[in-house]
Amino acid sequence: MVVTTDTIVSGVHFVESDPPESVAAKALAVNLSDLAAMGAKPRAYTLSLALPKDWSSQETILWLEGFVCRLAWDQRKSEVHLIGGDTVSSPGPMCITITALGAVRAGSELRRSTARPGDLIFVSGSIGDAALGLKYIAGELPDLPLEFGDALVNRYRFPQARTELGQQLVGIARGVADVSDGLVADLEHICVASNVSATIEASSVPLSSAARAAIDVNPDLLAVALTGGDDYELVFAVPPASANVIQAISKTSSTSLTAIGRVDEPDPKNLGTYAHVLGPNGSPLDLTIHGYQHF
Amino acid sequence: MVVTTDTIVSGVHFVESDPPESVAAKALAVNLSDLAAMGAKPRAYTLSLALPKDWSSQETILWLEGFVCRLAWDQRKSEVHLIGGDTVSSPGPMCITITALGAVRAGSELRRSTARPGDLIFVSGSIGDAALGLKYIAGELPDLPLEFGDALVNRYRFPQARTELGQQLVGIARGVADVSDGLVADLEHICVASNVSATIEASSVPLSSAARAAIDVNPDLLAVALTGGDDYELVFAVPPASANVIQAISKTSSTSLTAIGRVDEPDPKNLGTYAHVLGPNGSPLDLTIHGYQHF
Repeated sequence: MVVTTDTIVSGVHFVESDPPESVAAKALAVNLSDLAAMGAKPRAYTLSLALPKDWSSQETILWLEGFVCRLAWDQRKSEVHLIGGDTVSSPGPMCITITALGAVRAGSELRRSTARPGDLIFVSGSIGDAALGLKYIAGELPDLPLEFGDALVNRYRFPQARTELGQQLVGIARGVADVSDGLVADLEHICVASNVSATIEASSVPLSSAARAAIDVNPDLLAVALTGGDDYELVFAVPPASANVIQAISKTSSTSLTAIGRVDEPDPKNLGTYAHVLGPNGSPLDLTIHGYQHF
Repeated sequence: MVVTTDTIVSGVHFVESDPPESVAAKALAVNLSDLAAMGAKPRAYTLSLALPKDWSSQETILWLEGFVCRLAWDQRKSEVHLIGGDTVSSPGPMCITITALGAVRAGSELRRSTARPGDLIFVSGSIGDAALGLKYIAGELPDLPLEFGDALVNRYRFPQARTELGQQLVGIARGVADVSDGLVADLEHICVASNVSATIEASSVPLSSAARAAIDVNPDLLAVALTGGDDYELVFAVPPASANVIQAISKTSSTSLTAIGRVDEPDPKNLGTYAHVLGPNGSPLDLTIHGYQHF
């Protein structure tokens, strides 16, 4: 049994104007994503809801209807069950904590700490959509066609945990994290835990056509994609000999899995920087921020 | 394995001026109390902390030092372990969620739903101290001697879960709740779940000498004691034949366990009122509020 807990707060982890369906999807997905990064099958979860006390009962009921409706839908899809919780009123913003329980064969759980020099680094799906979606909501991508904007916002509002993939990686991947804080930051979490460094090529990082369109207009947005987070993809290391197994998983599960770099020995000259990102011309990209700074 | 989760919010479940040690004690105790009400042995817990983002780092560090110090002490005492969590910053008040895991032999967990007509109702320790302590903090009990005030505030700030007692009641008590919302309200939770009604005598409810002193000055405070909550005692039903076992547990564990009433058939004439409280003269006490109203 593995246990994980994640809290989302209005105004921090989601936008106050996000619909309740999106808040439900996010609250559950961020936790299922943590289970996926451990290779666990979701089993059950508890839910703690702190609701703003200045909402009218009608407002609260309306919000809760959207919230529980989506939660019911998502939990059916993920075969996970709400087993209890707590509901309180708060003088502050909405604050939601889910604690999720998952099952994985003892000793075979995926960890951050097991990547080794020489391993290849893969990432699932596409990176940067959610962070760019947040910028789109904020009106910062006015030139992006509507259908691309919608696609990005959808990734931000309705993240999908890589539940199946996580379980398929058991016994194959070593050094696994979900991309929540940002690709570079989460890769660094693997590096620190595994005592290795890593180099990825920015041009290899998979982008959706919507993200590609936004970055084509403004190349500075590449850094946003690489460090913005909320992707809920899996980034993981595998021994080179297992690369063909990853290709097979990608094919049978119709999940895009892309090699983006390699694991190296720890670099004594660059203490504190564990993940290096090479730009299109082969020289290191200078990313001032590697991911979301919680404090 | 049983799982419980409880959230406490600054300004709702604790006073902003409460020291961090008290907040830690309360956050853990409210969850351990839920495990006690299920007869479970505490095993592990996760902690989610939403810290106010407008605090300076020095303020935050100072607060956290007091918080973790007490948490470490309490978890050693309760033989429970922090296995993970989440820490986020919030534009609102401090919001703390603990999810606790406990172990109990399968099928022998204590439940609210198993009280039967004819059972005796017992309560542990003394009732009303925490609610009166909160009134003392608010300056509403100016005539109470300092040592009594301190004793009441201590019960409010540092609740103790009845962990040992809960485990001792397995196989003996049927219909168990912890007193968090208020004695009358929590007894009603048992009644609703068990489809019974209950009658308790106010004069039998155990009071500390501090609570007794406060109520002697202002008899209206009896209602506060009976409905105020935050006691974290256990209220439970036992078949009359087991009364001597309860007395034996009380003796060997030095825990005061007091018979306060009996379980009756559901009362079709009083739908919606499940717990009746008889006043000193034998007539029903009219309690406008039976316990804490969350919304």
